[in-house]
Amino acid sequence: MGKIIFIGFGLFDEKDITLKGLENIKKSDKVFAEFYTARLMGTSKEKIEELFGKKIKILSRKEVEEGKIILDAAKNKNVAFLTPGDPMTATTHVALRMQANEIGIKTKIVHGVSVITAAPGMLGLQSYKFGRTTTIPFPEKNYLPESPYDVIRQNKENGLHTLVLLDVKPDRLMTANEGMKILLMVEEKRKENVFTPETLVCVVARAGSDDCLISAGYVKNLSNKDFGEPMHSLIIPGKLHFMEAEALVKLAGAPKNIIKARS
Amino acid sequence: MGKIIFIGFGLFDEKDITLKGLENIKKSDKVFAEFYTARLMGTSKEKIEELFGKKIKILSRKEVEEGKIILDAAKNKNVAFLTPGDPMTATTHVALRMQANEIGIKTKIVHGVSVITAAPGMLGLQSYKFGRTTTIPFPEKNYLPESPYDVIRQNKENGLHTLVLLDVKPDRLMTANEGMKILLMVEEKRKENVFTPETLVCVVARAGSDDCLISAGYVKNLSNKDFGEPMHSLIIPGKLHFMEAEALVKLAGAPKNIIKARS
Repeated sequence: MGKIIFIGFGLFDEKDITLKGLENIKKSDKVFAEFYTARLMGTSKEKIEELFGKKIKILSRKEVEEGKIILDAAKNKNVAFLTPGDPMTATTHVALRMQANEIGIKTKIVHGVSVITAAPGMLGLQSYKFGRTTTIPFPEKNYLPESPYDVIRQNKENGLHTLVLLDVKPDRLMTANEGMKILLMVEEKRKENVFTPETLVCVVARAGSDDCLISAGYVKNLSNKDFGEPMHSLIIPGKLHFMEAEALVKLAGAPKNIIKARS
Repeated sequence: MGKIIFIGFGLFDEKDITLKGLENIKKSDKVFAEFYTARLMGTSKEKIEELFGKKIKILSRKEVEEGKIILDAAKNKNVAFLTPGDPMTATTHVALRMQANEIGIKTKIVHGVSVITAAPGMLGLQSYKFGRTTTIPFPEKNYLPESPYDVIRQNKENGLHTLVLLDVKPDRLMTANEGMKILLMVEEKRKENVFTPETLVCVVARAGSDDCLISAGYVKNLSNKDFGEPMHSLIIPGKLHFMEAEALVKLAGAPKNIIKARS
C-alpha cells in the first residue's frame, strides 16, 4: 500500500512551496496537481517540472472528485498531490482524503501558504477580526449569487471584516471589478445598505508576487480601477481598529477620513 | 537605504519555510527572528543557522516593539525578519512595518504557512465555516480571561466554528488541557452553556510535524488526555456539515453519534 501526500503549493509561483513540500515531492513516485481551486499565475507546468526534476500530471476538478486516478496510483506508490494554497481548504480534497482513509491508503498533509492569511496581513488587518470567509461565484442566467452579500452583512453586524474570494473557472478568473459589480447588483436588489458605492473596500492583487498590489477606498472609486493581472481578492472591512485604519491609509491609499471617522 | 523583508517561518521546523523565503534570507545582509508569537518546536537556532549558512539574531517582544534594532540595521542593509506562521498575523509586526514605512524604509512580505489555515484543514473542517479566531492568555491573579468565551459564544450563535490559539510565554506554552480548564472556569462563572463537559471540542497538536495529532470528542473525555508536546490549539465546532462530522469521526476519533445527532 502506498500513500497520498497532500502538498500545499502556495500563492503565486513554484517558489512558494516549502522545503518540506519539495522534499516530499522528490521522494514521491508520482506527482499530481490541480489548478481549479486557484491558479499559480507566476509559473507554468514546465517551470514546475524543471524545479522538481520530474513530470507532473494536472487533474481536472472532475478527476479529483471521482478520485479514481489518484487512489489507483496510491495503491502501490507514494503519490504527491499538489494543490494551490493550503491543501485542505478545498472540500474536494477533504473528500479525497476520506476516500483514501476508507480503503486503507495512508495520507499526510504538508501545509502551504494560503491567501486566507496572506491577504489580511498584506493590508495590516488583524486576523482575529475576520468573520467567515466567502466566495463569489460567476453569476449564471437567472442566478445572482446572494450568499456572499449575506456573509458580509452578518460579519459587519458583528463588527468583523470579510475576506471575499473570487471565482476560478477553467477559462476565466474573476477580477476585483467583476466581484464589486456583482455585489452592487445584489445591493440593488436587496437594498440593505451592505455594499454600496460609499462602502469602504480593499483589493488584493497577485498576493505572493513581487508585483503584488493592495488598494483601499470607496467602491465608487475602485470599482472601475485597473488592478492588473489576477488573482484578485476583496476584503470588506468591519469596524477598524485605529492601527488598522492607519495601515489602510498609509499602505493601501485609503482616504484619510477613515481614521477621523472612527474617533 | 536598505529594506526589511518580513518572512514567514511556518509551523514546526526549519523546513516549513518556502523556497522564496530561503532565497530572500540568502540575499539578506542581516537576519533577525522572533519566537514570542509562537515556537518552532522541531528546530533550534543552530539548525536554522546551518540551513541558512548565516547567523541569526533572536529578538524579544520588547525589542521588536521598540523597533530600534531592526530599523537601525535596515537604514543601510537588507534585513530579513523571520517570524513563525505568516509574518503579518501579529500586531507588533504590522506596527514595525508602519514605523519602517514612516521613515522611508521599504518593506516586503514573504508569506508563510499559518496554523490559522493548517489546523482547520487537518481536521477536515471547512475554512469558510469559521468565525473569528481567538487566543486564550494565561490567567493572572484576579484576572480570568473571558473574551475567548464570548467569541466562541458569538460564533456558535452564528453556527460557526472557532479556532482557539493558546498563549505563548517565554517560559511556558499553554496546553490544550490548560486551555480547556480555563474555558470551564469561565463557564462555571458565566453559566451560559457555551463550554461545558458535554461540549464537542477538537485538539490539534504539533501541526506541521510528522508526529502531529488531531483528536475530537467531548470536553469531559479530552480535558485530561495527554496530547504530548506543544504547540497545541483548540477548535470548538459550530454547526457541522455532514462531511465535517464524518471527518471528525473517521480522522479524529469523535464519537459516532455526532453524525446521527445532526439528522
